[in-house]
Amino acid sequence: MNFDDLLHDPGEWLNSAPTAHPVVISSRVRLARNLVNHPFPGWAKKAERIEVLHRIKPALLSLPALEHSFGSDMNELSPVQKQILVERHLISVEHAGKGVGSAVAINAPATISIMVNEEDHLRMQALRPGFDLDSAFDAISLVDDQLDAQLEFAFDSDIGFLTACPTNVGTGMRASAMLHLPGLVLADQINQIIQSVNKIGLAVRGIHGEGTEALGNLFQISNQTTLGESEYDILRRLKEIIHTVIKHEHNARRKLVSEKLATLRDQVGRAYGILCHSWSISSKEALNLLSLIKLGLDLGAFPKEFRREVDALMTTSQPAHLQKLTDEKLAADERDRLRAFIIREKLKSFPSPDTSSFGEEQAASA
Amino acid sequence: MNFDDLLHDPGEWLNSAPTAHPVVISSRVRLARNLVNHPFPGWAKKAERIEVLHRIKPALLSLPALEHSFGSDMNELSPVQKQILVERHLISVEHAGKGVGSAVAINAPATISIMVNEEDHLRMQALRPGFDLDSAFDAISLVDDQLDAQLEFAFDSDIGFLTACPTNVGTGMRASAMLHLPGLVLADQINQIIQSVNKIGLAVRGIHGEGTEALGNLFQISNQTTLGESEYDILRRLKEIIHTVIKHEHNARRKLVSEKLATLRDQVGRAYGILCHSWSISSKEALNLLSLIKLGLDLGAFPKEFRREVDALMTTSQPAHLQKLTDEKLAADERDRLRAFIIREKLKSFPSPDTSSFGEEQAASA
Repeated sequence: MNFDDLLHDPGEWLNSAPTAHPVVISSRVRLARNLVNHPFPGWAKKAERIEVLHRIKPALLSLPALEHSFGSDMNELSPVQKQILVERHLISVEHAGKGVGSAVAINAPATISIMVNEEDHLRMQALRPGFDLDSAFDAISLVDDQLDAQLEFAFDSDIGFLTACPTNVGTGMRASAMLHLPGLVLADQINQIIQSVNKIGLAVRGIHGEGTEALGNLFQISNQTTLGESEYDILRRLKEIIHTVIKHEHNARRKLVSEKLATLRDQVGRAYGILCHSWSISSKEALNLLSLIKLGLDLGAFPKEFRREVDALMTTSQPAHLQKLTDEKLAADERDRLRAFIIREKLKSFPSPDTSSFGEEQAASA
Repeated sequence: MNFDDLLHDPGEWLNSAPTAHPVVISSRVRLARNLVNHPFPGWAKKAERIEVLHRIKPALLSLPALEHSFGSDMNELSPVQKQILVERHLISVEHAGKGVGSAVAINAPATISIMVNEEDHLRMQALRPGFDLDSAFDAISLVDDQLDAQLEFAFDSDIGFLTACPTNVGTGMRASAMLHLPGLVLADQINQIIQSVNKIGLAVRGIHGEGTEALGNLFQISNQTTLGESEYDILRRLKEIIHTVIKHEHNARRKLVSEKLATLRDQVGRAYGILCHSWSISSKEALNLLSLIKLGLDLGAFPKEFRREVDALMTTSQPAHLQKLTDEKLAADERDRLRAFIIREKLKSFPSPDTSSFGEEQAASA
């Protein structure tokens, strides 16, 4: 499978059905693993990293989940290709900076992705659309078991899996869900929610993980601790909190409908008006406005069959995805114009938002 | 003629033809006059102001220009009515604050308006659509002559007409033109132009005169000095400068079309998108966006027959005009919603902006 085949489809986890979860975009579980007797990638010499990659590759190729998959050494990917994988959440920002001795393997539906020699020898993740952490965990556990049978992982019977960074030691697991929280943002309650979630030991981050900005009202909630708790306990606690945040988001949306209907209609209407008629738009503004269209969809302002298009635009309007459309190297302002064009063309098929139904829709779903 | 008749029509000077001047919205000449042997309004006691008003009224009633006119003592107008007259540039902001002893008379087409006991005993102005200072001057001079025949004006043969404020002494004339300068604003050249105009002794102000903000890219250019120069010289100098500013505005627009076409299309497109789909909009934002629609019209993005509607919206979307539509007292947020509704409804008849023709249109008119 080559790179373009991988991109042909937005990936199963991005391919949201009209019945997609209105708050949780996707669920993800990643495991960090390292081989015994090999230095962590950050300490290893180039030759040592290459040796580790050579040991891991045959094991990856034997995985049933990776049949007909896409695989590449990082030095063989162009900067644009790397950035596209980042924009699709298939590799980390850090991994995009890697070259010789690092690699990535991604299964055909783009639901499993394995980074070799990122911060650890192995960073493997499973992605699922909607709120489905259990199935993501099951999928990546299967991969973990199959690799464990062929590779010897660094493991301490007292503390668990050993990792390059102490924050991953133990389970080596980071489970996360990407939540779309426009209600909490518009109602100005998001910071309060973030603080509460942080207080109980979970992390809230922007769309590309640690240290990134919250764009498009998208927030990742994940476990912070990997030590002293079983995978099941971590997942149970995380799911509980996510359920609570979902409830708060629904409450915030209901409250906006009942108390700030004009503001809500105004926000959705303006987002639609700007996206239909702008000739230049930054990736950041596009994400923020598409988020409002998505909220409008959830509240019944657009027919449900348009959800897929909006979700796809949130990815395809990202810089590297735009760059991929043309052979010439685009400057930032050229990308902004191309982005505006693509969004305008897509939104041509959308009807004007019918925000008159906000009240009833919300009442029906309440 | 009652107040509502006056409002029925936007007033001849606002009733822009499809062939209206693309830069100069309106021209205005006002004269300040005072009766001899009566203290200026600011120093006068209430009884003295009433006496002046009683002396002036019969003279006004005899004016042929004011036949079938609207006239009222200021204390008989409601705050909303006063504010509407301000929004139509028929009285000054200061005059709206006046009560017993002050009055206003406005001819039926709303092209002549006379304030009694504003800062001076008489402030009379003639308004004209487009760039037509001469005809405005002729109209108000005729009124001046006819009043002069009945009232004795305070006049000094050395310095000219005496006025309450020294800045008006001499001719007592302030001639001004309202210019729509979106090109200079978008090209970031407006401050430079303002400074140059100021340097040669003319004033540039916002849409409601002295000390007001420049909204909707509208600027008033007027003479500063009234002493030592004849009316004709003042007008000649003012017209010269306005011609120069018009040329700069056209150059700026041409340059935007040739060098920043995407920005221009983006600005006009977004303005249209927001005005068509917002559910709440402030008077300030509405004016600024309508200004961009107006620029779009000038450049051929909309059929010329829509000009009248855009120009009318710039006035009818002002706070007091909105308040007039309903019997209930509107809060600011209610006005913002009503304004958005009215603009949305009006723009429904507009086609989407066809900015693809910007290049050719401009080339054709260049």
